[in-house]
Amino acid sequence: MDLGPGPEFDRIRRIAQRLGSRAAPLGDDCALLRIGNSTLALSTDLSLEDVHFRRSWLSAQEIGWRATAAALSDLAAEGATPIGVLASIGVPARDSGEPLQQLMDGVGEAAASVGAQVLGGDLAEAESWILNLTVIGSAEHPVQRSGGMPGDNVWVTGVLGGARAALERWLAGAEPDSAARQSFAHPTPRIAAGRGLAERGAHAMIDLSDGLAGDAGHLAAASGCAIAIDLGTLPLHSSVTEAARLAGIPPERYAALGGEDYELLVAMPPEFAEREAQSLGIECGVALTRIGTLAPGQGASFWSGGTLVELAGFSHFA
Amino acid sequence: MDLGPGPEFDRIRRIAQRLGSRAAPLGDDCALLRIGNSTLALSTDLSLEDVHFRRSWLSAQEIGWRATAAALSDLAAEGATPIGVLASIGVPARDSGEPLQQLMDGVGEAAASVGAQVLGGDLAEAESWILNLTVIGSAEHPVQRSGGMPGDNVWVTGVLGGARAALERWLAGAEPDSAARQSFAHPTPRIAAGRGLAERGAHAMIDLSDGLAGDAGHLAAASGCAIAIDLGTLPLHSSVTEAARLAGIPPERYAALGGEDYELLVAMPPEFAEREAQSLGIECGVALTRIGTLAPGQGASFWSGGTLVELAGFSHFA
Repeated sequence: MDLGPGPEFDRIRRIAQRLGSRAAPLGDDCALLRIGNSTLALSTDLSLEDVHFRRSWLSAQEIGWRATAAALSDLAAEGATPIGVLASIGVPARDSGEPLQQLMDGVGEAAASVGAQVLGGDLAEAESWILNLTVIGSAEHPVQRSGGMPGDNVWVTGVLGGARAALERWLAGAEPDSAARQSFAHPTPRIAAGRGLAERGAHAMIDLSDGLAGDAGHLAAASGCAIAIDLGTLPLHSSVTEAARLAGIPPERYAALGGEDYELLVAMPPEFAEREAQSLGIECGVALTRIGTLAPGQGASFWSGGTLVELAGFSHFA
Repeated sequence: MDLGPGPEFDRIRRIAQRLGSRAAPLGDDCALLRIGNSTLALSTDLSLEDVHFRRSWLSAQEIGWRATAAALSDLAAEGATPIGVLASIGVPARDSGEPLQQLMDGVGEAAASVGAQVLGGDLAEAESWILNLTVIGSAEHPVQRSGGMPGDNVWVTGVLGGARAALERWLAGAEPDSAARQSFAHPTPRIAAGRGLAERGAHAMIDLSDGLAGDAGHLAAASGCAIAIDLGTLPLHSSVTEAARLAGIPPERYAALGGEDYELLVAMPPEFAEREAQSLGIECGVALTRIGTLAPGQGASFWSGGTLVELAGFSHFA
């Protein structure tokens, strides 16, 4: 298993080592399971109140949508087509009436938005909200993190930094603008784009949950390549200029270190050209932007106008 | 969806109603998914510290085993063969070193004990331990809760009441005897028995997580039958006599109201005879006991020496 640096990933590395043959290869967005002539993709994703969200920020319906969309995003990153979701919900007794129903509305809507059904779940009383979403899909052309090759171009869907902008406004006790709020509360799992990129020969793909800086490192580590990102090309969310100004850092760095955008980062062979990206983007309703390249070597590096940039808080060669 | 009575099940009924076509039929032990010529069974199960277990009762390894065995028990109840598990773990920062590794040892051992692999998971920091286990298996002869027919005999695997006996000793501030402790800390998912019963034509099956009284009600409701249990025939765990004496209630009632035994309750056609049950029990390493029958009607009733018994705390016609 090859993950980028970080204490969370050290823990996962130790678990994989200790489990040995009791575990399948871990560390990709999805587990892949061959059943007859089909390949299934499975992923599971835990969302906790006061860790991943606060009740005061989001409606119950939005909490359900967001947790489900985040889990479905792992299927998107595998190029998979969603089939169903299983929802385990821990709910405080005071919320076990209408709020629970609204939360499950959000789960059901996110699933239905990508053609998946709620297949089952579990319900328990808890001190605070707990949502675990397991997603299952079929993957005709599964794309793992490990297939990137030197010479590949690196593309990203959508715009970056919106979820971080919302989060920081909330943490400052303010209300985010509606576009930033939407990024955080109602992310879109990029299922059509993921499938389209897989069909067009994607070598490696990952969804941006930890943030571009960290996730680019995972893709590079898994592919055994170096990844170089040109910060000047990053597609920025409309809220980032103001949010970065408030934070006192350049907008591109702000976006590169923002997490939970749930966009796709993908290594495409050089034959995949700008024109093809544009037509795929129109087909899927989301822009594709070329932001970097893979090369021999290791680690992730970030460049601005030809100068290597150290991303504060992110140690890319650690 | 037909579940027995209870406020938790009312909530699940409301969720299913509200989700409408956004959900598959809910309410069985597993979701069934047809993939090519295969049928997959999926289930997800949430275990929370201070709700389902306490740290002071169990080792981290036992917590991992128990949560995984409980989830695998749903595959047993479907007559399915386990393939893999996905483990979402919420862990307090102070336990993210060795205790987390031990917990995952328990997850891996429980999976390996039934031929399954750890396929993936998720990891988050949490205030207290959270374990969500999703299990996937293949089911050539899936057995749902709904196929029971009047005239069927009702059988149960193993012995009942051990987990309750352990739980009540702990709650009284004492230490359970080692046999009761083992029932709670190290339940055995009855995979071989479930598969053997499925192959021998089981009509309906459920695993005993809520306790015999409640789970018999679910099986009856799903099958559209009445279920009658003869309390005098219940196979009792060795700790039940003493535990029931301490609690001041008859041993059979104590066992019928005890939860989390993770044994199987199964409706078999009348052709399935005592001799066949014995040989299957020897093959699977667990006894099978005939404890009741299905009949036209509805609800669960419990009998002792020909007298109808009201089980305190359980309203079987509600």
